[in-house]
Amino acid sequence: MSIKRSLLSAAIAGLFSFSANAADKVDLMITDAMVLTMNQDKTVYQNGTVVVDGNKIVAVGDDSLAQKYTARQVLDVDGDIVMPGLINTHTHVSMTVFRSLADDVPDRLHRYIFPLESKLVSRDMVRIGANLGNVEMVKGGVTTYADMYYFEDEVAKTVDKIGMRAILGETVIKFPVADAANADEGIKYALNFIEQYKDHPRITPAFAPHAPYTNTTETLQKIAKLSLEHDVPVMIHLAESHREEEKIAERADGMSPVQYMHSIGALNKNLVGAHMILVDDQDIQLVKESGMGVAHNMSANIKSAKGVSPALKMYDEGVRIGLGTDGPMSGNTLSTIDEFNQVAKVHKLVNKDRAAMPPLKVIDMATMGAAKALQMEDKIGSLEVGKLADIIVVDTKAPNMIPVYNPYSALVYSANSANVRHSIVDGKVLMKDRNMLTVDEAAIRQEALEFTDVVRKTVVESGEVVQ
Amino acid sequence: MSIKRSLLSAAIAGLFSFSANAADKVDLMITDAMVLTMNQDKTVYQNGTVVVDGNKIVAVGDDSLAQKYTARQVLDVDGDIVMPGLINTHTHVSMTVFRSLADDVPDRLHRYIFPLESKLVSRDMVRIGANLGNVEMVKGGVTTYADMYYFEDEVAKTVDKIGMRAILGETVIKFPVADAANADEGIKYALNFIEQYKDHPRITPAFAPHAPYTNTTETLQKIAKLSLEHDVPVMIHLAESHREEEKIAERADGMSPVQYMHSIGALNKNLVGAHMILVDDQDIQLVKESGMGVAHNMSANIKSAKGVSPALKMYDEGVRIGLGTDGPMSGNTLSTIDEFNQVAKVHKLVNKDRAAMPPLKVIDMATMGAAKALQMEDKIGSLEVGKLADIIVVDTKAPNMIPVYNPYSALVYSANSANVRHSIVDGKVLMKDRNMLTVDEAAIRQEALEFTDVVRKTVVESGEVVQ
Repeated sequence: MSIKRSLLSAAIAGLFSFSANAADKVDLMITDAMVLTMNQDKTVYQNGTVVVDGNKIVAVGDDSLAQKYTARQVLDVDGDIVMPGLINTHTHVSMTVFRSLADDVPDRLHRYIFPLESKLVSRDMVRIGANLGNVEMVKGGVTTYADMYYFEDEVAKTVDKIGMRAILGETVIKFPVADAANADEGIKYALNFIEQYKDHPRITPAFAPHAPYTNTTETLQKIAKLSLEHDVPVMIHLAESHREEEKIAERADGMSPVQYMHSIGALNKNLVGAHMILVDDQDIQLVKESGMGVAHNMSANIKSAKGVSPALKMYDEGVRIGLGTDGPMSGNTLSTIDEFNQVAKVHKLVNKDRAAMPPLKVIDMATMGAAKALQMEDKIGSLEVGKLADIIVVDTKAPNMIPVYNPYSALVYSANSANVRHSIVDGKVLMKDRNMLTVDEAAIRQEALEFTDVVRKTVVESGEVVQ
Repeated sequence: MSIKRSLLSAAIAGLFSFSANAADKVDLMITDAMVLTMNQDKTVYQNGTVVVDGNKIVAVGDDSLAQKYTARQVLDVDGDIVMPGLINTHTHVSMTVFRSLADDVPDRLHRYIFPLESKLVSRDMVRIGANLGNVEMVKGGVTTYADMYYFEDEVAKTVDKIGMRAILGETVIKFPVADAANADEGIKYALNFIEQYKDHPRITPAFAPHAPYTNTTETLQKIAKLSLEHDVPVMIHLAESHREEEKIAERADGMSPVQYMHSIGALNKNLVGAHMILVDDQDIQLVKESGMGVAHNMSANIKSAKGVSPALKMYDEGVRIGLGTDGPMSGNTLSTIDEFNQVAKVHKLVNKDRAAMPPLKVIDMATMGAAKALQMEDKIGSLEVGKLADIIVVDTKAPNMIPVYNPYSALVYSANSANVRHSIVDGKVLMKDRNMLTVDEAAIRQEALEFTDVVRKTVVESGEVVQ
């Protein structure tokens, strides 16, 4: 290196150093925070700081960090809990408009929900319901969700608008539905949707074959193949009901749903199975080896008396598993915060051990576990440098949250979705002090209420049971 | 009657008619309400009105009622749900200051809670904790609660101040505690407390023998006798744990806790048994025949993996049974709204039937059932003319509450404690639009947070496990 070049280098280094100081100007800093990083070591900063630039986390640490940056926006959260945004691994967001209909009807999916949907699912319904559900989720601290429904391009528009992150799975099912006459048309719809959204920064388009028993082997195999070609997720209801178990056993020589999916080559890392209640140890091994994800929907599963998934066992054995709410006709709410205490308590109950499900495991299943289930653990699920800035702030001053000796306990046993103060996705504040910043909540509510009048009339006119 | 007198009568009648119009001036009217009366017929007024004068309900009906009265205060609730205030049949309100401590320690009561209490229970602690818990309850829609703890005269002062209704049970236990060296001193403390509060319009003083196994037969019989003499309730933890079951079986020739209490003459209408998990059909018959009340604390019972009380069976067989939260180290929250979905779902799960626990039953157990459990069904638990005006208003416009096709479903499966907008006790608005009107919430919070520093130091210094 000549002297000149060396001097030039030094000058450039100086410039860079200067630039580095300039780079200390960042977009957003959260200070005076009880930071739960949910990193590998589960580091907690009692007086912590999270620094965000653009859509990324650039620093996480104690309060000394706050001196090193100048931020365009500072959220001093006065000791509140700051943690990764919650990831809802399974829902049908648009079904908010059907919430509280016929909750206790036996064999409800086939006797009530499918007929209801055949009458009422439309582009409008999907958009209106998704808008409402998105608001509910952001207000409940959900920053990413995985959806399975119809007209997912409509859901995508709502997600794009509000600024959330989502995996949106277009349904494929063997009978005629609102946006497809059969499974092949569903696949075609999904392929168009995938083409349209494959490069979106926050939306991942996906296939959503409804379930093994509502699709043919051929369809399931075709989707498995296409998903690998397009490198997109496949979301499916799996090992959920005895009806499914019986139908698959008939079809596949007594196999369990998981064994069957494995046997047809559809059990792989792109797959996310929702529910997974009826799985035995052999199934769990297949699930683990496949690298697939699991969505654990405790609240919906016990509401329908379907049973308790061995989700804790799967978690402990290293399966990629996270919490989901299921759809609002099933769950019936959309924030996983409202799942936390049920998840903890019911696993304690069925394991007959109060120590079986410590709060930390529940929070892990709501954040990193869920990120792993969706194969997104390199991007979201923890507060670490380089990760996307999906962050929530949970109030520690509401009377139900005082005191916080153990933040994980407080979150799991005391918090409800209304305790979320701020929600941030991709570095952007979507809710601040419970006010929605990117959408008009009142207008969304109004449109939803108007649509529910249509639902009321249709359901009453058709003679369906409402209450 | 002379003509003059007749004219006079007519004049007086006119005056009375004028007076009657004047009497139509009432204190409070709630209009544009979806009124769930929870009366015998479970009448619902979709466009309803509730009229309150003084501390009583003077009219309940449809929107035509609103024309008949002039109210000093009108709450137009814009279609929100109006229902009886929730009744929390079992808690230890002052333990809010210990919330989130050591939630998963096995044999926690004996290994952790009793030692913790021996260090930290004081008049101050009881007052500070009760103030915080009262605010949490009013904000969560609880208007009446039943408490078991120490220094109940301190709790009474906080209840008097905030304006809630409560049954406050002074603990009697055989080992030394903060306010008594032994059971006899506990009884003495309770008798003084009863004397002091026996005529309070909103506070019912009571005995609270901790449990059968932590008291002698003699003590339990003495309390049973005194309670009948003074006509005050007796609250006890009953049939809660295997430890208790074993100790009582040893003491009483293999009897169950319920059989034992019956055998010693302590099972009567004044008794309220909390938990009642370990009860068989024979026990249930004894409970029913005794006329005693039962506090069903689902959330605490499953959190501690103690099991599921056959509460639904008791309810269906006509036992006086209502919901309770248990204390904030156990539940961990104090509003029964946050119990609703667990109560519904876990009974569905254990009965393997999604129709086993319809939402209406849950709401009944939170209102009239709880009133019956506390022998207060002639005063509270439903919105009926002549009853005390304990009323709550639940937001139907929060995103998690839209839509309300079935109000009971919405309350049980969707609502959380933060959806309560207004809480009214004894005709007085204690919370309006989530603002506390009778106490200074910020000051209460501050005092609680200061006390938690004491707890932190004590617990850490003593080497107890915190997380």
